[in-house]
Amino acid sequence: MANSAEVLDHILGHPPSAAHPISYNFLVPNIKGLQNLLSVTDSAKLNTTEPAPITSPEDPNLPPTPPATPPPESEEPAPITSTEDPNAMPSSTSQTSSHSAPITTEISLFTAATEAFSKANTNCTIADSLDRCRRIVTLAKSRDLRVRGYVSVALGCPYEGPNVSPAKVAEITATLLEMGADEVSVADTTGMGTAPRTQELLKALSAAGILNKDIALHFHDTYGQALVNAVVGLEHGIRTFDSSVGGLGGCPYSKNATGNVATEDLVYCLHSLGVRTGVDVEKVALIGDWISKELGRPNDSRTGKALLAKLAQPQGS
Amino acid sequence: MANSAEVLDHILGHPPSAAHPISYNFLVPNIKGLQNLLSVTDSAKLNTTEPAPITSPEDPNLPPTPPATPPPESEEPAPITSTEDPNAMPSSTSQTSSHSAPITTEISLFTAATEAFSKANTNCTIADSLDRCRRIVTLAKSRDLRVRGYVSVALGCPYEGPNVSPAKVAEITATLLEMGADEVSVADTTGMGTAPRTQELLKALSAAGILNKDIALHFHDTYGQALVNAVVGLEHGIRTFDSSVGGLGGCPYSKNATGNVATEDLVYCLHSLGVRTGVDVEKVALIGDWISKELGRPNDSRTGKALLAKLAQPQGS
Repeated sequence: MANSAEVLDHILGHPPSAAHPISYNFLVPNIKGLQNLLSVTDSAKLNTTEPAPITSPEDPNLPPTPPATPPPESEEPAPITSTEDPNAMPSSTSQTSSHSAPITTEISLFTAATEAFSKANTNCTIADSLDRCRRIVTLAKSRDLRVRGYVSVALGCPYEGPNVSPAKVAEITATLLEMGADEVSVADTTGMGTAPRTQELLKALSAAGILNKDIALHFHDTYGQALVNAVVGLEHGIRTFDSSVGGLGGCPYSKNATGNVATEDLVYCLHSLGVRTGVDVEKVALIGDWISKELGRPNDSRTGKALLAKLAQPQGS
Repeated sequence: MANSAEVLDHILGHPPSAAHPISYNFLVPNIKGLQNLLSVTDSAKLNTTEPAPITSPEDPNLPPTPPATPPPESEEPAPITSTEDPNAMPSSTSQTSSHSAPITTEISLFTAATEAFSKANTNCTIADSLDRCRRIVTLAKSRDLRVRGYVSVALGCPYEGPNVSPAKVAEITATLLEMGADEVSVADTTGMGTAPRTQELLKALSAAGILNKDIALHFHDTYGQALVNAVVGLEHGIRTFDSSVGGLGGCPYSKNATGNVATEDLVYCLHSLGVRTGVDVEKVALIGDWISKELGRPNDSRTGKALLAKLAQPQGS
């Protein structure tokens, strides 16, 4: 597989075909990261308001099934986004606001809900991390880039344990939004999150005046509880959930954490609940199979494996 | 690993140590199966009211951690049972009624919710299958054996698709209970079950006058939805859920079905919701690791793998 620079070059030079605008997400660890990004890219060019071409020539570097999603089943904008884990991939796709505002470039920045994790992940205090974020957000907004903040270990910390303060998470989330972040992904980095604590956290976020539309939920499926927690979020009114195809990902500072909840499993669950995502889960399953093989990793999506087995077998067997 | 006859002989001759009575479950495919069971065992001996000894000599054939569960955290009987998949194992452990009635032997019998699956699994119609069940139940009850019925493919059939009639499932469940079954496990054999259809099925069972205490729910985690569906069952008032350690199991007549939901994942979820099961999930994780290795299968429990990784690493890493 190509390295990040080659992937970036390919994406910028050969935008893949898509029925809807695609948002490219760049993880920016610090202000230098954003400056580097801006120096190698022209933000005006990135922020094209033209949707990507519907068709493009076949490219042997692309997966066997194009990553384009089919038209949504309704005329309403698809409210659910399913972005790849920014820890795992240098870019991600998102359907957020794809109809109302064709934003095509987004940066991601990270802070954490506990001092110990902030120290390990970003080598600074939470307060220092937020100061760094503020500089990045200010520069990004001056270039009209969409900004996505992440609050890591919001439902459990490998150093401080499962009982992370919901009020602290709410305070950090509000700070990121106030400094100009367009959205904050509240992340259960360790997968320690449970249904009652997810509910408690969402209540704390609401009590702090944070709107559901400004929040995404980001669950790792380390203990197999991600879908249960996602349903709690859905019932609370959250409409944006992070996931990764094939359950890829992990976190170098949370050693036992597995990847994000698999996109295939999440989308299957959302569809089962009547949510219209516009995502073709069988196509995502094929991509999950392809990328798992490319990376030499086991496919960690139950739905993906079940759909692949079904596709491979004659009807009714 | 020993074959079934050796395992049975060992269990009868050397009951493992346990803090609570253990119920042995024998899958009985037909009346001959029960007659064979009765001919090789003495039902009076099996139905001992004496609890198994608390301690027993170390046995090198047993797993490194004894399968005994610790005392429940409350004085009330533990309402949740977690039995192994009868498709996968010749015996299972159960805490059902362990305090109120020390039943130690139970037989399992199967019918199905669709004609196509009944034909494939038991080579007869549903009506014929119920007639066979009636003969087995009559004989079993004459020997004071506890009877557990199973209704396969209650939430999806590999031949007839996902939309299995809830009314039909309710009718079959009621028939099994009326003929004398002590409990009926309503089984999502294919893992096609979704939260809304689980809810619809439970409403149909209640509408048919079936009590929650007479039902168990049995989810396979093929599409990763088992815990979401189990929570729906819990909210409806169901207190008995089947699971298998390490997610073992499958179904020869539902080719793509993976095992039952892993006991480790289910217990972790139940504990997170405040349910007292009396089960030590770390000990179950060790057993899951042991038996997966014995069987040369991957450990299919996310909680199990996460707990094993945590146990293997120094605190805080």
